[in-house]
Amino acid sequence: MKLSIVNITEKINTHIDQISPYDPGKPIEAVAEYYGIDANDIIKLASNESALGVSPAAVKAIRNNAELCFRYPEGSAHKLRIKIAKKFDVLPDQIIMGNGSNEILTFIGHCFMNSETSTVSSEHSFAVYKMITELYDARSIQVPMTKDLVLDIYKMVDAIESDTSVIFICNPNNPTGTMIKNKDLESAIEKIPEDVLVVIDEAYAEIALETMPESMRYVAEKTNVIICRTFSKAYGLAGLRLGYGMGPVNLIQALQKARQPFNVNLIAQIAGTAAIDDDEFVDQSKRVYRDAKLYMEELCNDLNLNYIPTTTNFMLIKVGNGAEVAEQLLKKGIIVRSMNGYDLPEYIRVTFGMPKENQKFIKTLRELLK
Amino acid sequence: MKLSIVNITEKINTHIDQISPYDPGKPIEAVAEYYGIDANDIIKLASNESALGVSPAAVKAIRNNAELCFRYPEGSAHKLRIKIAKKFDVLPDQIIMGNGSNEILTFIGHCFMNSETSTVSSEHSFAVYKMITELYDARSIQVPMTKDLVLDIYKMVDAIESDTSVIFICNPNNPTGTMIKNKDLESAIEKIPEDVLVVIDEAYAEIALETMPESMRYVAEKTNVIICRTFSKAYGLAGLRLGYGMGPVNLIQALQKARQPFNVNLIAQIAGTAAIDDDEFVDQSKRVYRDAKLYMEELCNDLNLNYIPTTTNFMLIKVGNGAEVAEQLLKKGIIVRSMNGYDLPEYIRVTFGMPKENQKFIKTLRELLK
Repeated sequence: MKLSIVNITEKINTHIDQISPYDPGKPIEAVAEYYGIDANDIIKLASNESALGVSPAAVKAIRNNAELCFRYPEGSAHKLRIKIAKKFDVLPDQIIMGNGSNEILTFIGHCFMNSETSTVSSEHSFAVYKMITELYDARSIQVPMTKDLVLDIYKMVDAIESDTSVIFICNPNNPTGTMIKNKDLESAIEKIPEDVLVVIDEAYAEIALETMPESMRYVAEKTNVIICRTFSKAYGLAGLRLGYGMGPVNLIQALQKARQPFNVNLIAQIAGTAAIDDDEFVDQSKRVYRDAKLYMEELCNDLNLNYIPTTTNFMLIKVGNGAEVAEQLLKKGIIVRSMNGYDLPEYIRVTFGMPKENQKFIKTLRELLK
Repeated sequence: MKLSIVNITEKINTHIDQISPYDPGKPIEAVAEYYGIDANDIIKLASNESALGVSPAAVKAIRNNAELCFRYPEGSAHKLRIKIAKKFDVLPDQIIMGNGSNEILTFIGHCFMNSETSTVSSEHSFAVYKMITELYDARSIQVPMTKDLVLDIYKMVDAIESDTSVIFICNPNNPTGTMIKNKDLESAIEKIPEDVLVVIDEAYAEIALETMPESMRYVAEKTNVIICRTFSKAYGLAGLRLGYGMGPVNLIQALQKARQPFNVNLIAQIAGTAAIDDDEFVDQSKRVYRDAKLYMEELCNDLNLNYIPTTTNFMLIKVGNGAEVAEQLLKKGIIVRSMNGYDLPEYIRVTFGMPKENQKFIKTLRELLK
């Protein structure tokens, strides 16, 4: 045993030390305190959360099971996996549950990334792909989008290098709200080598406003495709952290080895099991988002503002100086996301809320831009 | 781009592929189904869960906030960290929250482990230390215990090699229930080089039946000590997954880089914030465990069974063939843990329950051993 005067922080793995922390945006309470606004007057349209709140079936399940929380959760979320498996006509062993679908991405990191690999993702796509890549010391290859801010899936396939182990396809894409069409996805997947893992992140699938590509068939047909889904958006369970991955049995088995024993909390499992049958809630949500899209687009046209036509529950609006406008809105108690971190400084991203929230947002934006 | 016929599973990082999954023990429902026993007749004394259930303050908080679960949780659990910081007289920046204290161990893995490092832990100590070590491709050095099944802290310090980056001290130790004394911990910490991270895992501290070592002073005085705590045991929140680490600001800052943006769910944050003030619940729990210890020891003496004197809410009982006895108990609706996985095949580990549960356990054990 050698004695040493080295400080422990000098022993931190270099690739971790270099990571800059993610900025998750301001919660309502922080805005209320900072700007001296009553929290009840604040509207949060910033995190693509459900406009309708939590699925009522889930609320009931949470309340009824609060007293059970002294028990450890069922390790692999067996019951919930059986339900999801039925819904998608796959085997329970083709499903892995995560503490949010974000955690599925870390399992992928553990299994497929290291300092000698790279990942391919798109510019202006979900920030966590690059974060995870850095967390596992891999190299991130970022591919430009089409000028309409759609994933350029053909260029992404071309960007795959010999050391690439994972390609991330976010569909619909966050933060642009755009969707890849079925035939484009199909032709891309045909071209991707079998030893590159294709991660299709479908966080917004259930509330998509256009027809989604038939991606589930790749889970059945291909050995290298995993689809990630979440209960955060369509079922309003973002706070409980519940996501899942669906893929071939072999692949899921490998990812399970990177999963910690009790990663998905008990209340999330119970709420998810209740929410997944709540089709009425999802249908109602889609109606709200469809109406919101029409309303917001019409008023953007009125205001002579460009926007990116969305396929889900949020949209990009081109306001000039996005950070400045977001800050001004914040002072008026409306939280939206500036897109500086996504290299889209002229835009803000607005999550669709209930009609009154959307109206207040548009009214305030109109005043600011006068 | 090279075309390839390699299957994706051949690309899994070798050290992950070699991991064998953790066996978390059978949940009540699975036992009920398998053995055809009414779930209400089953007694689970297997996972060191709280005998008193969930802290009532937490139950109330969960019920009252179920409708908030559509919001993402506050990223760094700021409010809860302020409360914990006050309780321990440290800064909020000296605290990092995890999805269970288990996740704190993964942050430590990200920061301090790789294929060129080793970790030191004790035999017959919490299985997750070795699991995490393997997850990050490091080498696990396991040190034998004293013959009384106490951590041999001096031998552990001697076992530190030049590539050792982390030493795990579980106190009280799971699964043996034994505690290291203040002076032994002190002299060990003085000898451990400053560039080795000392992880003191105090999952059972709040319900310890003997005086805990004064470990918090190392957080103030040393640069290389982190203390892990959990809400699972003392506050009955195992199902919600809520743990934390306390250490010097520099160290915590580094661990934060490995944390995913929304790792601790909203209900856990709210329940933890309510539970941490529920001193009455913790005091009551300790009384229950103290009585249970006296009762169980007395009856083990009656039955001529050796046991390891415990300092917390579970105990090891030497029954001969632990796996066989655990299986026989299971058939009678009593779930305890066989210690085969911990290389203590002659023992079972029994979590203290409420008096009626303990009585039924002893009665059944007596019948089995007749």
